[in-house]
Amino acid sequence: MDYLRDPAEIYRRSFATIAEEAELGGLPSDVAEVATRLIHACGMVDLVQDLAWSADAVASGRSALHAGAAILTDARMVSSGIMATRLPAANPVLCSLTDEAVPGLAAQLRTTRSAAALDLWLPHLEGAIVAIGNAPTALFRLLELLDAGAPRPAVILGFPVGFVGAAESKAELAANPRGVPFITVLGRRGGSAMASAAVNALAIGASA
Amino acid sequence: MDYLRDPAEIYRRSFATIAEEAELGGLPSDVAEVATRLIHACGMVDLVQDLAWSADAVASGRSALHAGAAILTDARMVSSGIMATRLPAANPVLCSLTDEAVPGLAAQLRTTRSAAALDLWLPHLEGAIVAIGNAPTALFRLLELLDAGAPRPAVILGFPVGFVGAAESKAELAANPRGVPFITVLGRRGGSAMASAAVNALAIGASA
Repeated sequence: MDYLRDPAEIYRRSFATIAEEAELGGLPSDVAEVATRLIHACGMVDLVQDLAWSADAVASGRSALHAGAAILTDARMVSSGIMATRLPAANPVLCSLTDEAVPGLAAQLRTTRSAAALDLWLPHLEGAIVAIGNAPTALFRLLELLDAGAPRPAVILGFPVGFVGAAESKAELAANPRGVPFITVLGRRGGSAMASAAVNALAIGASA
Repeated sequence: MDYLRDPAEIYRRSFATIAEEAELGGLPSDVAEVATRLIHACGMVDLVQDLAWSADAVASGRSALHAGAAILTDARMVSSGIMATRLPAANPVLCSLTDEAVPGLAAQLRTTRSAAALDLWLPHLEGAIVAIGNAPTALFRLLELLDAGAPRPAVILGFPVGFVGAAESKAELAANPRGVPFITVLGRRGGSAMASAAVNALAIGASA
């Protein structure tokens, strides 16, 4: 069968196609780097029309990664997609969803396990990279914790996906990021591959 | 902040929205179950227009899961997205990508690590559930191995994503599945969340 097998050439052609087809011209160059990785992860060049970000998001995230910041994820899939070898400071990647305290906390807070797991982030939140790729309730809960005075992360990479709360939680983040730098994709689209691609884009730029 | 927190109600509303918006009427009922989970994983109801499948795919996959079949994935993200507690026979989930033999094998075969990793699937391929959610070269390599007489898996869940080879490899699968039951989404879209959602759809139906 005739197909392209060379990994470097596959990357080159993939990014050339994205550069040709995606309308990246309106983005700051560092945001365009992240957008390229997001599009690469999902195969959809029209994702760019739904991107929202704060001007300082990429710089803040890269600076934090260099300083050794922790990466907090809402799902094991997000953690699995992060390229550990590209992290500039052997940054710890923490997903508290499977912590044994979470089911009890979720019942007590009358919420999802994904949201309850965020309470276990609190000791790690200051200056962290937050990557949410699954649960809208996790992003809502993060905004609630910030409203209640929680420590500020360095950047929120907000990519919850789906039909209940995803569009709403990301619209709330974009409308009022509580002073925290952020990158998100508005609407229903999102997912763990985008969240980990966003972390990887920060890491690859930061380590270059 | 006012948002829905009840996990059961979030699931119910999500699936109700999908049932209302997605054009599932043309699908066999068991394929519609898988389509619903795929759409739930990506937030896009129009995914259904790109689905391709063989009539026996869901039944073959569920029967294999019940019989204890292994699940073979091309990426750790796919493995991470599989809900282990829903598997009907504590089915093993194998991802050979990080095997220490893979880099050498990739160099020797002049291909990607994702494709080379498939050669380590051979002892497990007979009757297995194959879930490809990342690399087009993995799907191409699987078809090559089948052409060379490799054992037949029970079902191919083919969801490689991206701009180089994804559309081509899935079109080849749909045009000539080599007698193996399959489910795929044509075009550039795909990804690990879809691949694991397809496994979960088979498992949840099989365990009901």
